[in-house]
Amino acid sequence: MNPVEIIKLKRNNLHLSKKQIHIFIDGYLKGEVTDYQMSAFLMAVYFNGMDDDETFYLTETMLNSGVTVDLNYLHVPKVDKHSTGGVGDKTSIILAPLVAACGIAVPMISGRGLGHTGGTLDKLESIPGFNVNFSIQDFKRIIAEIGVVMIGQTEEFAPADKRIYSLRDVTATVESIPLITSSIMSKKLAEGADAFVFDIKIGSGANLPDHDKSLELAKKLISTSKKFGKKAMAILTDMEQPLGRKLGNWLEVEECIELMNGGLIPDLYKVNNVLAGAMIYLGGKANSVEDGEKIATEKLLDKSAYKKFLELVEIQNGNADYIKDWTNLKRAKYKKDIIAVEDGFVAEMRAEDFGFSLIELGSGRKKIEDKIDYLAGIILKKKCGDEVRKGEVICELYSGHEDKLLKGDLRLEGAVKISKAKPGMKNLILDILE
Amino acid sequence: MNPVEIIKLKRNNLHLSKKQIHIFIDGYLKGEVTDYQMSAFLMAVYFNGMDDDETFYLTETMLNSGVTVDLNYLHVPKVDKHSTGGVGDKTSIILAPLVAACGIAVPMISGRGLGHTGGTLDKLESIPGFNVNFSIQDFKRIIAEIGVVMIGQTEEFAPADKRIYSLRDVTATVESIPLITSSIMSKKLAEGADAFVFDIKIGSGANLPDHDKSLELAKKLISTSKKFGKKAMAILTDMEQPLGRKLGNWLEVEECIELMNGGLIPDLYKVNNVLAGAMIYLGGKANSVEDGEKIATEKLLDKSAYKKFLELVEIQNGNADYIKDWTNLKRAKYKKDIIAVEDGFVAEMRAEDFGFSLIELGSGRKKIEDKIDYLAGIILKKKCGDEVRKGEVICELYSGHEDKLLKGDLRLEGAVKISKAKPGMKNLILDILE
Repeated sequence: MNPVEIIKLKRNNLHLSKKQIHIFIDGYLKGEVTDYQMSAFLMAVYFNGMDDDETFYLTETMLNSGVTVDLNYLHVPKVDKHSTGGVGDKTSIILAPLVAACGIAVPMISGRGLGHTGGTLDKLESIPGFNVNFSIQDFKRIIAEIGVVMIGQTEEFAPADKRIYSLRDVTATVESIPLITSSIMSKKLAEGADAFVFDIKIGSGANLPDHDKSLELAKKLISTSKKFGKKAMAILTDMEQPLGRKLGNWLEVEECIELMNGGLIPDLYKVNNVLAGAMIYLGGKANSVEDGEKIATEKLLDKSAYKKFLELVEIQNGNADYIKDWTNLKRAKYKKDIIAVEDGFVAEMRAEDFGFSLIELGSGRKKIEDKIDYLAGIILKKKCGDEVRKGEVICELYSGHEDKLLKGDLRLEGAVKISKAKPGMKNLILDILE
Repeated sequence: MNPVEIIKLKRNNLHLSKKQIHIFIDGYLKGEVTDYQMSAFLMAVYFNGMDDDETFYLTETMLNSGVTVDLNYLHVPKVDKHSTGGVGDKTSIILAPLVAACGIAVPMISGRGLGHTGGTLDKLESIPGFNVNFSIQDFKRIIAEIGVVMIGQTEEFAPADKRIYSLRDVTATVESIPLITSSIMSKKLAEGADAFVFDIKIGSGANLPDHDKSLELAKKLISTSKKFGKKAMAILTDMEQPLGRKLGNWLEVEECIELMNGGLIPDLYKVNNVLAGAMIYLGGKANSVEDGEKIATEKLLDKSAYKKFLELVEIQNGNADYIKDWTNLKRAKYKKDIIAVEDGFVAEMRAEDFGFSLIELGSGRKKIEDKIDYLAGIILKKKCGDEVRKGEVICELYSGHEDKLLKGDLRLEGAVKISKAKPGMKNLILDILE
């Protein structure tokens, strides 16, 4: 079948068969379908969507373009988490060792920073020596040894997704529920987990800010997981303000270590533990998400999560001494305080602006070849709802370059709003879908 | 501005400015916007359309990508016709010399066969020696000398359209009103005419079979022409059955010669003369289309159209003796009759099927490099509404290759329907818009 006819079917909002999707995607990988035909197809999908069957076939074809890891030799439940990305969203770094400490294997494949949101790999690489590039053999060896592994996407997993994602990025076809779903799922399914928890971020700092679209994505991720015989849950969490108090690569790792050593960062703690609860529940080690939350709290307080994290750092060639030295605060050379200009309450801290400010400071990339400044970042001294007095510090900006510090400061203009009245607080956990 | 942002604006159904359209199209010609970005943009336009301003800017940018001929030195009105394409639609070959014979210059740039519809250039090239490839200098010289010229698209006219059209063809983005409009108009405006008559074909044999879409196209062509300060009319004509009785390149030229020598082919005569009437009216040589029709009839009967046609053939290096010898019927080697299997009336002759059968016979191309068999074609001995008796010939198929004759025959299966009752006749002229 001619690729043009397949594009035309989708353009005319007709159902594509398994065979048609297979021919089109495989044809693309073989070079029989061109980039310009794929981008026309992607735009047609953007407009007309894909039903559950089409999304399943698309995901399946993309998954089968690469290898799938078989982790059945582990003889334990295998659960992974995926977040749609937010600002200050560092939960993976706590969750992976925490859930592994509960006897559930966590085979986690993460990404780099995307747009204004950070990436787990960049954060992990702020630990000197930490390696995120392992072969599938090593991936299987590490998870067998310590029950957890955190690596980057490899060429072997869903190569179709890599090519299609790059094209979507430059053709304004990123924001499509079936395309996002197939991209996430084809990679996640390759890891070998048998259950997934999806953290769907909602709010200005999310990659998909719209609530209805996010709900649609959550449902599609769950239905697609189930079609592949996997268990799945989606937790919709607030991303209006950054999560936690520390933003930027090393600062976020530091905050995770803090939490794993008994520190209380309320919002991070809550979001993390609900996600952990869901993972523990899906892994069959708790009777409910709530029950799982309790187990998560125990594993944080008895430091077994932290111990597992140190094991992870060591097995992935990270410098454990650098971690253990976390109380010896590592900070970038230049610092600037953002000061309250009036008395009142913090009413808004726009996560998206903080995300873009972080890029200016050096925590993220503008171009793919940009080097990251691991100590650059922001520490929030106040969060939404906190009372603030004129002259008090709202947040501290850090960067290794004075000019970047200024740019980061500039980018934050208008991001923080002070109100006279105490603002109503939003729920952190907006919905839990199964 | 980043091309992705411009695609996103159109995708989100926001109005594009002149500058944005200019940046995108010019960027494409300079290689700063890629094929895959253009195809995503085209698909977004397919879904969200373009308003009159956007269509005007797009047309203007495409027009300005090449040269525009200035024909003001002619000191006569300059009118052209454009047809959206049909089966047996040969009116250009009659209209151009006919209208020129009325003292109106006709600068006509035509195309090749497209899909199942024939092309004027292929038909003209069935005349031995007839050259359709002239430089703009020659184009200006010929029209100055005899008042009419018929050539093919040159690289110098709207090169943006040529590149974009090729891309649309392979990305299922052909059927978009603003894209069709800008493609037609950017080429037509380059010719230097000051008025246009659009023949909008409607029915199974048209490239855009849908009535509402055709009406929309007619209106868009008129409004765009007017925005460029040009006069314009659109005639909506029936294309359910082929036009005239002879189909295929030389056979169609022969039928035109027949008409210009006093032969009566009712449907061809009617459509041709309404179009001619509109051209003569817009050229200021008649007070109404009806008045123009009368003048056209005179110019056909006194043979001044035929004389002008012979001048045209000679000046474009065609063999005039081959034309004058037209009564000495030139036919392809192999012939097959299609016979009525029952008594009744011809109720349907699906133009689209006849168009595809013509390609099989050798009159059209399947691939761009295919050579055309100029004598291949079909002669209709019956037309819709005609009474037919079992065993009578409905049509004759001609081809230079026996195997092609069989394929052409096969492709016609089911194209002709016979009914017991005399079918109601459709109007040939469905609407006239100004």
